[in-house]
Amino acid sequence: MQELQNQINLQFHKLRKLLDEQHSKQFRKRFLDMHFYEQGQFFLTLNHEQRLQLYQIMAPDEVGDMFDTLEDDQIDMSKILAEMDLKYASDVLNSMYDDNAADFLEHLDKSEVDRYLALMPRADANQLRGLLHYDTQTAGGLMTTDYVVMRQDLNVKEALDLLRKFAHTAETIYYLYVIDDDNDLVGTLSLRELFTHNEKAILSTIMTSNVISVFVDDDQEAVAQVFRDYQFVALPVVDHAHKLMGIVTVDDVIEVIDDEAQDDYSKLAGVDVDESKSTPLKAASSRLPWLITLLFLGMITATLIAHFEDLLSQASILAVFISLITGTAGNAGTQSLAVAVRRLSLTNNKPQHLWGLLLKELVTGLVIGLITGMTIMIVVGIWKHSFVLGAVIGLAMMAAITVANLAGSLIPMLMAKIGFDPAVASGPFISTLSDLTSVLIYFNIASLFMGFFKGM
Amino acid sequence: MQELQNQINLQFHKLRKLLDEQHSKQFRKRFLDMHFYEQGQFFLTLNHEQRLQLYQIMAPDEVGDMFDTLEDDQIDMSKILAEMDLKYASDVLNSMYDDNAADFLEHLDKSEVDRYLALMPRADANQLRGLLHYDTQTAGGLMTTDYVVMRQDLNVKEALDLLRKFAHTAETIYYLYVIDDDNDLVGTLSLRELFTHNEKAILSTIMTSNVISVFVDDDQEAVAQVFRDYQFVALPVVDHAHKLMGIVTVDDVIEVIDDEAQDDYSKLAGVDVDESKSTPLKAASSRLPWLITLLFLGMITATLIAHFEDLLSQASILAVFISLITGTAGNAGTQSLAVAVRRLSLTNNKPQHLWGLLLKELVTGLVIGLITGMTIMIVVGIWKHSFVLGAVIGLAMMAAITVANLAGSLIPMLMAKIGFDPAVASGPFISTLSDLTSVLIYFNIASLFMGFFKGM
Repeated sequence: MQELQNQINLQFHKLRKLLDEQHSKQFRKRFLDMHFYEQGQFFLTLNHEQRLQLYQIMAPDEVGDMFDTLEDDQIDMSKILAEMDLKYASDVLNSMYDDNAADFLEHLDKSEVDRYLALMPRADANQLRGLLHYDTQTAGGLMTTDYVVMRQDLNVKEALDLLRKFAHTAETIYYLYVIDDDNDLVGTLSLRELFTHNEKAILSTIMTSNVISVFVDDDQEAVAQVFRDYQFVALPVVDHAHKLMGIVTVDDVIEVIDDEAQDDYSKLAGVDVDESKSTPLKAASSRLPWLITLLFLGMITATLIAHFEDLLSQASILAVFISLITGTAGNAGTQSLAVAVRRLSLTNNKPQHLWGLLLKELVTGLVIGLITGMTIMIVVGIWKHSFVLGAVIGLAMMAAITVANLAGSLIPMLMAKIGFDPAVASGPFISTLSDLTSVLIYFNIASLFMGFFKGM
Repeated sequence: MQELQNQINLQFHKLRKLLDEQHSKQFRKRFLDMHFYEQGQFFLTLNHEQRLQLYQIMAPDEVGDMFDTLEDDQIDMSKILAEMDLKYASDVLNSMYDDNAADFLEHLDKSEVDRYLALMPRADANQLRGLLHYDTQTAGGLMTTDYVVMRQDLNVKEALDLLRKFAHTAETIYYLYVIDDDNDLVGTLSLRELFTHNEKAILSTIMTSNVISVFVDDDQEAVAQVFRDYQFVALPVVDHAHKLMGIVTVDDVIEVIDDEAQDDYSKLAGVDVDESKSTPLKAASSRLPWLITLLFLGMITATLIAHFEDLLSQASILAVFISLITGTAGNAGTQSLAVAVRRLSLTNNKPQHLWGLLLKELVTGLVIGLITGMTIMIVVGIWKHSFVLGAVIGLAMMAAITVANLAGSLIPMLMAKIGFDPAVASGPFISTLSDLTSVLIYFNIASLFMGFFKGM
């Protein structure tokens, strides 16, 4: 991989030199030999002058192909478009797949958007404007309107001829969508199926009429789940009257799966893991707010312990086990949290059968608490030659684990219930919270047995 | 979603009834109307007798299409195949895409595999046997050999005619792979490109000769990264002599991305989050080993605190801040761990620029420690009317956070360096380990200032 990276860096270096020295012809040839993705990566390495030079050499649709591979968080598109001639910029946007163009326009001021759309053919501008209305986290936000749609009374040969025409503009020609006279979606056909039927066959007789589709306002995670299950390459998006609105293609879904996974992972650790390119100062300032919040939550625990200081001064042995009990309960809580968050994300954040799940987690917590508590009871009993002390630690451990386990699944479920993302309840939050309950449980149990180990 | 699920359950119930009552014709019609994925989900609900009935009604290739949608962890294929007539079972396997068939055969005894392969055409059996040699986590383990390959001197019309023939067996006909007389991979062509060229054009003149491919022993994560970057639907796999060995399709890659994400998430929490269907007892027994291990690690910390019991009995106020310091350092360590694991997974587990990254994390830790330490110093100083105590807590907090932060990134890097999965270092592990270092730092600093708060 490292070798490949060096090759690419060398290639990019040569290309920049060609730009600087205005060898337009040589640049064009080499540039077009690269894959769109590599063109995009190359573009990200250019300075302002080099980019201006590139706009001179390449046509708008060639630049559009390249922009189709870039993400909206990699590039400040408002700045980039402003560098171009207005008509050129509008042509670039119009030549892109409209879901990608919409993702970029999302970040621009309304006046800027209007300026670019004004120079496009009316129909294209309207389609783009339509896409801008959808929430980016929904099927509508992911879909493209560059798809192939056909009437159900065409035959295979007519369909193939039409597909050939669409091949330049559609985002995929491998699925086509069949509509009736009311424009209702009535079937789908893959190019592969077209290929295996007689040229005279009528679409309505060979299409799959049991159409799997998603609604325009479905959450992107639900859309990704359908792709995973059915192994589709593209999926139609309909409104609630079952009119075809667009299609989602698999490349956009891979991004969704990736982003969602990274998001869950980040939240579990209470940190944005995508900070790799930032400076230590930036990293620190993104991690601090959460840490300081938890610090103040931890202060409540400290106040609570201070409340039991009298107990502690009489039996300092109790202090020895504070971190063992809080730590173990925190670990158990983190486990049950991760299981609950994952389960909620699989059921699309709808906490169904809430009580059943909680009961299950309660039993799991009790079993874990019982075994962990017994273990520590024996260990402490032998170590400190006091099975009463062992029993206190073991009992406290068991109760603390059961509570932390329950909190770990209850809190994300409650978050989901009141409409928050359950993943906001992070591992550090659960462990800090369970420190509090664990300390409370520990010292209350210890006070009951105070007579036994005063002065230990 | 719930409504859809109810509909499907009802549908499945009706189908099972048709099987039980041996209404073969009606069953066939309804069954074939479902998508392959739904057929697979239905199959999972059947009992032994119902499955036997289904094998009577459906042809082997129809059962194969359904099995193509099932994962090897959803079904005990050894048992299922043994229910069938031997020839029928062999035909089912042969009609499946060979990457999927290989995934199932992976789990069978060698003698069973040989029995099924013996009844297949020699070439098919050899291809399947070949796939069984590859590590399941590599490109070779993901690839299929059901792809379309053509000589470079064919023209577009000949290519389209050939594709038509392959349409029944190939896993995708949307990409075709072009080879020279030595069988070396020299180019790729999408069906879309074929469609937009003249029928007389020769493949070698219109193909993309800058082929992006992966090696047969490349890790599956690296393969997934290429799909993400280039937005391919299929990708050729070559050996180190650049001979084409197979192709990986996007559906298999979605699974990889999903599995890897779930794996990282599970490891961060020290639990297998995919336990949703298990009983509380099973859940407890899968979570306990890790918890008990950490419990013993935590015992070392307890022993350490016991070592300072004298100090504690003289100044019980010190006990108040144990959980605050260990907790906050643990939270900071978890953050830096998650960032490090993610960074290592992006660079494909090769810890490059190790010292630079560690230095960066050290500075980040110092900044976080400084700010958190100052905050707690002021809070404790005001609360307890003692800025000496505040300074001790603040200083200990700063040092503990810096060390935990460094450990959070150092440990996964060391794991990667010695060839382990860096994600094995989980959040609970880092917090339990940092409890130990935090306590050590805290009491050592506290002993230095003992004179100031004896008896507090």
